[in-house]
Amino acid sequence: MVGCFSCGTARINVPFGGEEMTTKISADIPQALAALHQLLGERLSRSKYDLDEHGRSESYFPTTPPDAVAYPENTQEVVELVKICAAHGCPVIGYGTGTSLEGHALAVRGGLVVDFSRMRAVRDLRLDDMDVTVEPGLTREALNSELCATGLFFPVDPGANASLGGMAMTRASGTTAVRYGTMRDNVMGMEVVLSDGHVIQTGSRARKSSSGYDLTALMVGSEGTLGLCTALTLKLHAQPEAIAAGVAAFDKFDAAVRAVQDIIQIGLPMARIEFIDEATVRAVNSYSGASFPHKPHLLVEFHGSETAVAEQAREFGEIIADHGALGFEWSARPEDRTSLWAIRHTAYWAILAERPGTRAVVTDVCVPISKLAQAVSETQAELAESLLAAPILGHVGDGNFHAILLFDPNQPAEHEEAKRLSDSMVQRALSLGGTATGEHGVGMGKTNFMLNEHGNAWSVMGTLKMALDPIGIMNPGKLVPPRN
Amino acid sequence: MVGCFSCGTARINVPFGGEEMTTKISADIPQALAALHQLLGERLSRSKYDLDEHGRSESYFPTTPPDAVAYPENTQEVVELVKICAAHGCPVIGYGTGTSLEGHALAVRGGLVVDFSRMRAVRDLRLDDMDVTVEPGLTREALNSELCATGLFFPVDPGANASLGGMAMTRASGTTAVRYGTMRDNVMGMEVVLSDGHVIQTGSRARKSSSGYDLTALMVGSEGTLGLCTALTLKLHAQPEAIAAGVAAFDKFDAAVRAVQDIIQIGLPMARIEFIDEATVRAVNSYSGASFPHKPHLLVEFHGSETAVAEQAREFGEIIADHGALGFEWSARPEDRTSLWAIRHTAYWAILAERPGTRAVVTDVCVPISKLAQAVSETQAELAESLLAAPILGHVGDGNFHAILLFDPNQPAEHEEAKRLSDSMVQRALSLGGTATGEHGVGMGKTNFMLNEHGNAWSVMGTLKMALDPIGIMNPGKLVPPRN
Repeated sequence: MVGCFSCGTARINVPFGGEEMTTKISADIPQALAALHQLLGERLSRSKYDLDEHGRSESYFPTTPPDAVAYPENTQEVVELVKICAAHGCPVIGYGTGTSLEGHALAVRGGLVVDFSRMRAVRDLRLDDMDVTVEPGLTREALNSELCATGLFFPVDPGANASLGGMAMTRASGTTAVRYGTMRDNVMGMEVVLSDGHVIQTGSRARKSSSGYDLTALMVGSEGTLGLCTALTLKLHAQPEAIAAGVAAFDKFDAAVRAVQDIIQIGLPMARIEFIDEATVRAVNSYSGASFPHKPHLLVEFHGSETAVAEQAREFGEIIADHGALGFEWSARPEDRTSLWAIRHTAYWAILAERPGTRAVVTDVCVPISKLAQAVSETQAELAESLLAAPILGHVGDGNFHAILLFDPNQPAEHEEAKRLSDSMVQRALSLGGTATGEHGVGMGKTNFMLNEHGNAWSVMGTLKMALDPIGIMNPGKLVPPRN
Repeated sequence: MVGCFSCGTARINVPFGGEEMTTKISADIPQALAALHQLLGERLSRSKYDLDEHGRSESYFPTTPPDAVAYPENTQEVVELVKICAAHGCPVIGYGTGTSLEGHALAVRGGLVVDFSRMRAVRDLRLDDMDVTVEPGLTREALNSELCATGLFFPVDPGANASLGGMAMTRASGTTAVRYGTMRDNVMGMEVVLSDGHVIQTGSRARKSSSGYDLTALMVGSEGTLGLCTALTLKLHAQPEAIAAGVAAFDKFDAAVRAVQDIIQIGLPMARIEFIDEATVRAVNSYSGASFPHKPHLLVEFHGSETAVAEQAREFGEIIADHGALGFEWSARPEDRTSLWAIRHTAYWAILAERPGTRAVVTDVCVPISKLAQAVSETQAELAESLLAAPILGHVGDGNFHAILLFDPNQPAEHEEAKRLSDSMVQRALSLGGTATGEHGVGMGKTNFMLNEHGNAWSVMGTLKMALDPIGIMNPGKLVPPRN
């Protein structure tokens, strides 16, 4: 669709089957904005502040302000604004809290950013069924505050206090995925406004179903390219009766990975199992005055009954001892847990504080666990030859890890080097049977690897996109192959 | 596509966006069969025995023999046969072990049934990663035999010794879904031959990914309407160190459901939690000479360490006692477990044996657990007014239950009554926020409910089908809306 809005014609190539059709669409943004203003009044913003705010990302991508920002208050308004955008060929991009690390919400073809911050109601909380229907702008922390007294919680934890709609659309996960799964596993259904303004309900409130295509799973991780999510139903989980947390240092990272493999093999149910490398430990020590040994560390958490978590922690300690762990401290007391895990909670800030004024390319890859030690050690070797500081940390139970590639924004060469290192990590992950992104999504940063990772299946993604968004207004320029 | 093969023209209606195109396809089955014979030789069968065998179903649908049965031995042969069928407009229907309860593999438009019984290799078993890539004809029991000595197993258990390809394509589950999930949760990726002969690899061997549309989830449960699965990668799980099983009777079914709700709410990890009604107990007693009280029963199983399963069984016993359970027997010794669960393992045969010569409509619905007691009691009331015997049993942790509606095949009125009762169960499940099928799939039996359950989303399923199978050769007549 590149350039199509300037000539008013989109030449739509159907990748599957080789058929081709040309659809005339008007691409008149000013007309779209006039109609949107009529619909939304002051809730259509064109202020410089708003455009800049919604054109920025948490990551290293250039600022790309949209033409306008809409603040709908209900599904019907989203339907109306999508119909206006469809009629005028105006791109529509969903926006939650702006915490994407891959520039998902950037209006790279201009158009309308739809900010869901006025749609954050809990529509229906069903304690008996342990599920909840929420609007997409609600954040995970706000949901968990609402749930605090119910004995239930929503476990998916990507770190940032992201919106639940954004988390669904990027298939987010985080530290607890090893126990509770990702958004793929925890979204039961969605209300979606499609590119022609039709509203569909995907999924069911039944805990399982074999009734038709799994449209929920198709929408989760679709990054707003197939439609806008206006509500979602989430699985809730029992707040654990007890939590035990522990920390262990290792001389070598690969011994830590082998220990975790053994622990998974015997089915010991870890709720979180994180690793951080020496560079991260050094940063944490100098940031917080701690004195952790300058070694790779594993951090573990168990959820269950008091007896169960104690048994699990003891068993974990025995297995890692067999793999050469340098001691293992654990506790089920909240204050001790907090201090044990401080090393993880302060890691990102400690890393950034090491070099004030730096920015970071925060990259994310995921490999089969048997390849994790190799992927990390080869990455560390490559990083050691670079001038950039780049600590590594991640979710060892999933084979998912991140490098925080620090660069001076005033030194373009450093930025280029950070991107080169990130690309190299992705290529290595793919060559080891992994994926270009375990949890951050494709967005602007990973499109270049889609063909390599998916082959023919990437073209099928383009076919599905074409089928559901034939004029290409839903978050164009992302995820699928470019149209001819 | 009804009737299109007779005139040689398919008028293809694109439901989404209202566009319409007419595609000329030849529909020359004899030519297709000649080319297929050239490709497969004796592995293309037209024997009456083979056609009848592949035209029958486990359920009550009329026998509909295909035009031929193919026995491919590798992916490349599947590619070639699909290309031949596409060129001649010949329907292509995948076939595993024929254990579908909804007639998924019936060639209702004629054409070619592709029997995967010669594709049942374990392509790659990766113990370190706890995953395995298999061919679609391998059965779940054969896989578990191969895994026996490894400490791992594949937990999805629909009862029948189904093929893993068939289980994936129908999104099967069964008794262990409450702990290990369904095929949705346990298929990591697939090799799929699309309707134009292209082969795609969906998913990744990484444990999680945010890289693009979830094509694996789109294919799981697609019932062969989007392509043929020629290989699949499955998650494996640790064989539990210990298993405890137990049985409890209740005066009232709704007390049993409330007990299970409480147990789920506190996060007690049940590996199976089944219920059977009084009618099933009576059948089991007279079939096997047992003397279980004529009451609704719960059957539970726990997987974990010896300490954990014992603690869980004790806690389970305490909670159900609070809900009026009439005692609770449990054991972690294999021989005791087997005898405790005999009530469940013999249930289906005991039910059929009550009325020799009968056949059954085995229906399957799933509701939110808060509605399960209501759904079951209303169903029981309706069944009590019918002349048919119809025991109820199911997976209480998922809200999924079955009625086995027995009818005399020589009495058409009984068959009609069984279908009416099944339809009524589905309508009730939908009105309670549930789904028309929790695990059996749509097939021939549930298409009539798709519009009611999915609304606009059913039309979106049709759009996706049209995009990936524009000429409509992949298992036509199933799952999606009929084309105009």
